[in-house]
Amino acid sequence: MLSSVKRFLIGRPLKSTELGEQKLNKTKALAILSSDALSSVAYGPEQILIVLITVSAAAFWYSIPIAVGVLFLLLALILSYRQIIYAYPHGGGAYVVSKQNLGENPGLIAGGSLLVDYILTVAVSVSAGTDAITSAFPALHEHNVLIASVLVVFITLLNLRGITESASILAYPVYLFVLALFILIGVGLYHTFTGHVPADLHTPVGTPVAGISLFLLLRAFASGSSALTGVEAISNAIPNFKSPAPKNAAATLIAMGLLLAILFSGIVYLAYYYGITPKEEETVVSQLAAETFGRNFMYYFIQGTTAMILVLAANTGYSAFPLLAYNLAKDKYIARMFTMRGDRLGYSNGIIFLGITSILLIIAFRGQTEQLIPLYAVGVFIPFTLSQTGMLVKWIREKPKGWQVKLTINAIGALISFLVMMTFFITKFPQVWSVLIFLPLLVFLFHRIKKHYEAVGDQLRITTCEPAVPIEGNVIIVPVAGITHVVENSLNYAKSLSADQIIAVYIAFEREDERIFEEKWKKWQPDVRLVTLHSYYRSIIHPLTKFIDTVQHKAEESNYKVTVLIPQFIPKKSWHNILHNQSSLLIRAFLLYRRDVIVTTVPYHLKQ
Amino acid sequence: MLSSVKRFLIGRPLKSTELGEQKLNKTKALAILSSDALSSVAYGPEQILIVLITVSAAAFWYSIPIAVGVLFLLLALILSYRQIIYAYPHGGGAYVVSKQNLGENPGLIAGGSLLVDYILTVAVSVSAGTDAITSAFPALHEHNVLIASVLVVFITLLNLRGITESASILAYPVYLFVLALFILIGVGLYHTFTGHVPADLHTPVGTPVAGISLFLLLRAFASGSSALTGVEAISNAIPNFKSPAPKNAAATLIAMGLLLAILFSGIVYLAYYYGITPKEEETVVSQLAAETFGRNFMYYFIQGTTAMILVLAANTGYSAFPLLAYNLAKDKYIARMFTMRGDRLGYSNGIIFLGITSILLIIAFRGQTEQLIPLYAVGVFIPFTLSQTGMLVKWIREKPKGWQVKLTINAIGALISFLVMMTFFITKFPQVWSVLIFLPLLVFLFHRIKKHYEAVGDQLRITTCEPAVPIEGNVIIVPVAGITHVVENSLNYAKSLSADQIIAVYIAFEREDERIFEEKWKKWQPDVRLVTLHSYYRSIIHPLTKFIDTVQHKAEESNYKVTVLIPQFIPKKSWHNILHNQSSLLIRAFLLYRRDVIVTTVPYHLKQ
Repeated sequence: MLSSVKRFLIGRPLKSTELGEQKLNKTKALAILSSDALSSVAYGPEQILIVLITVSAAAFWYSIPIAVGVLFLLLALILSYRQIIYAYPHGGGAYVVSKQNLGENPGLIAGGSLLVDYILTVAVSVSAGTDAITSAFPALHEHNVLIASVLVVFITLLNLRGITESASILAYPVYLFVLALFILIGVGLYHTFTGHVPADLHTPVGTPVAGISLFLLLRAFASGSSALTGVEAISNAIPNFKSPAPKNAAATLIAMGLLLAILFSGIVYLAYYYGITPKEEETVVSQLAAETFGRNFMYYFIQGTTAMILVLAANTGYSAFPLLAYNLAKDKYIARMFTMRGDRLGYSNGIIFLGITSILLIIAFRGQTEQLIPLYAVGVFIPFTLSQTGMLVKWIREKPKGWQVKLTINAIGALISFLVMMTFFITKFPQVWSVLIFLPLLVFLFHRIKKHYEAVGDQLRITTCEPAVPIEGNVIIVPVAGITHVVENSLNYAKSLSADQIIAVYIAFEREDERIFEEKWKKWQPDVRLVTLHSYYRSIIHPLTKFIDTVQHKAEESNYKVTVLIPQFIPKKSWHNILHNQSSLLIRAFLLYRRDVIVTTVPYHLKQ
Repeated sequence: MLSSVKRFLIGRPLKSTELGEQKLNKTKALAILSSDALSSVAYGPEQILIVLITVSAAAFWYSIPIAVGVLFLLLALILSYRQIIYAYPHGGGAYVVSKQNLGENPGLIAGGSLLVDYILTVAVSVSAGTDAITSAFPALHEHNVLIASVLVVFITLLNLRGITESASILAYPVYLFVLALFILIGVGLYHTFTGHVPADLHTPVGTPVAGISLFLLLRAFASGSSALTGVEAISNAIPNFKSPAPKNAAATLIAMGLLLAILFSGIVYLAYYYGITPKEEETVVSQLAAETFGRNFMYYFIQGTTAMILVLAANTGYSAFPLLAYNLAKDKYIARMFTMRGDRLGYSNGIIFLGITSILLIIAFRGQTEQLIPLYAVGVFIPFTLSQTGMLVKWIREKPKGWQVKLTINAIGALISFLVMMTFFITKFPQVWSVLIFLPLLVFLFHRIKKHYEAVGDQLRITTCEPAVPIEGNVIIVPVAGITHVVENSLNYAKSLSADQIIAVYIAFEREDERIFEEKWKKWQPDVRLVTLHSYYRSIIHPLTKFIDTVQHKAEESNYKVTVLIPQFIPKKSWHNILHNQSSLLIRAFLLYRRDVIVTTVPYHLKQ
């Protein structure tokens, strides 16, 4: 039953050899890996204006030089990441680059930072998309958390189906969004050139503004840089590309950079030209669209595709998180389960983990995850800085042909990323201080986990040739609850094992009962020794364990092994299990984890 | 760790022999068993007025004759239940009485109805109490569901500690509430006699009112009867009384009846005399208290104790539900776990089940459980009617000394209860129709469960002397994941069992790996046969099960038993478990439930 539901939701399992068919071509890759970056143009320009308005609307012209700065940063990042893609064609992005060039801890900081960041990406972007939807249908507003959670479940299922399938479905909204914004920017520019827009809506570039400060401009620049989150996704996901993977990935990265640059500068310019002021209740893009088209079909087309891309930005997290988790797990810093491919060849544990944690975040913040945006931005620029610095060290160390150019590119990237990161810390400390707590904690945890795996490996590895302690004989203990076929079945099995001793144990809650049972037993199984124990506290486990400890103690002296043989009847239908006391399960778990005894379950399958 | 938290919350475990000390004396029993009934005077009188106001305020004088009717019903119920207590001193109330005298299905209807009703009692009364609290502190209002859930958890813990302890704590609020209402009624009556209250606030009894109808009066009567819910609790809980239990229970019942009669008639009379009109935002009791004392200390004392008793009314459910569940479980209609006494000698599974289900109800209805009140009232009068009818049949059948009087009392009780029940169905059908669906479903489920238990019993019982199929030999299959100490340990154990054949099974995901492993194995364990299986879908369970099936098939032909021996290493700290694939757990569960093989786990305890 369960497995057919699973088939329906995610499709038939794929053979390991079908992996190649699950790879992405450039068009699909661009769609699913750039939705995060592209969607940020929906709020990035607005972030700049929100900072500038604190001075006055006259300061809006500063958005133009700031946007130029952001574009320059974008250029630096794209060029840097292009170099990373060729240098590290197996993916892993910031984590791998930092670890190999800067050492273990910088690598873990970058990796941990990105790991958390992808969870934030999902939570934040799905919440933002949900807000966009419920703004259009206010009746749904009170169900925000539910809608966001359902969307996350939907995206999770899509990704469990496999990346090519999710790419086929998700490509449409992404390209529609790009188309919609192209039309908006095109028509908007046409209006400005034809003089449809009065020139007095904006102050000319260069107008002196009272009260402007470097701090404020830096802050506006940092806020605008949040439009660049998601740029690193492609470099993490190279293994998902069709071969030649690095070449295809690099081409996709360039295409994404171009799209991002056009959309970002178009929106900043139009917002400046139209003199748009950021409002609490309406986004800048919405105002722009309304000014340009009025509230007609085009307006709703733009709003609709924006809502969709905000939700789909989550998908970038789904592409990158499982691969990053795989890399960390391969290096034993997180649980090994993240290295397993699921039925559809995706790293399904990573996908499921991402889905669950982001739903938890959405519930914890009641769908109001905007508070997490600064945290999320700073979490992106930490790995940006580390990976660029890593590349820097790599070029200096290896000095390949033309290394000076490469070095310059990465040096500029590292410097700007570092500046943006510091600006975040300085200008938004109250929102981002928690990074300074949880990142070290995370790195500590990574080390603990690795230490554990190494300790386990050492203990399991057979290094010496000394033989294990020989087993001289076996004692079998059978807890019995009555005179039934289940018990008979277990005793027969015990006898067939030619053990040196078989002891049946009966636990009585009342004295009377004890005597009666002993008499019955003598008649039924005269050749099996019965021990009855009295339980004062109506517990089965405690007297049983005490007895087992005594037997175990004696057995160890002569190298005997103790086996506890648990008779268990298995009902025909699984719901019947709740009708029966699960004592055998409890006993098994307790003994296995607390005592060094072997636990055997002898099933007796009921026919009705 | 867990067990010390448990100790702290519910206290040390008690020996079975300490059961006697956990019994209740009359004062404590009255407090914990009557809180439901007494608390209903806080809303019963109001319910009458709410129906009458639909005609006009002039109709309020009808509340006096209606109250007389309710008192008469109360008298009939108290006398009837007194007879039930003596006739069925082992408790069980409506379920036992109906089952023994009317047959299985009427008994199950009564039992099922009460079972659901106690859950509703808890949900409804805790929600009502929470409303009273958050009315006083409006800032808490948005946390209603959380507060109600915490209160349920608190009451659940109290009851897990044991009934005498909960009685000691809960007695104070109950008696304080009675005291508070006595003062209110006393002072109120004093005011009316001394003429402090103008006589024109109320229309004289007997004033003709236009638009009054029998239907409406019946409806008002039925609504007022909801003040009688909880009357049956004592008859269910006789085993909790100190001996002589029936005598003490009967005395407690009479005391409760008297208190209930005084409080109910006092409030109805004062409300009538003061001309109180039910309001949306203020309860009748609150209005009465404000009129009598003004908003001073006494007013808050009355409101505070009312809120407390509303919460504590839940406790009646906690006293009665576990005993009723015990009776149903003893007769095999519900899961056997309800017959177990916990550490503190209460039927803890029933207590926990009640707590969880009522929290779920509170969450599902977002703390607005008032909608459930009619359902709850009708669910009380069904068992009332059935148990009184059962007593009727009993007297006719047995004809003991003075049976005519007893018959008359129960006949009147049965008739009135039936009328009230029918009134509910006729006047509030839209709210109570669901009873007609879920009660039959519940009865069906009871029968299914009983059938299952009987089928299991038949299959386990050893009736014939024919011996089980003899076991001619053993085949042991050991799934291995590598060349480690864990595997070595398991193989040694397998060898010590003198099995006829030991087969190690290795599952490879890649062809290359398969060959390498086989070579290594030949050097390491040349005497143990290794079978390697290739898994196309990266699943361990499927190829393994297929292989086991083949072996099993051959083994069965010659009466060999197949044992699957699972090597498992046990990490030192339990949190380490999440770092390791739980394949062994999965394999064990799958094989035990789906295949007829014996599953043995050989633990290898890690030292670090």
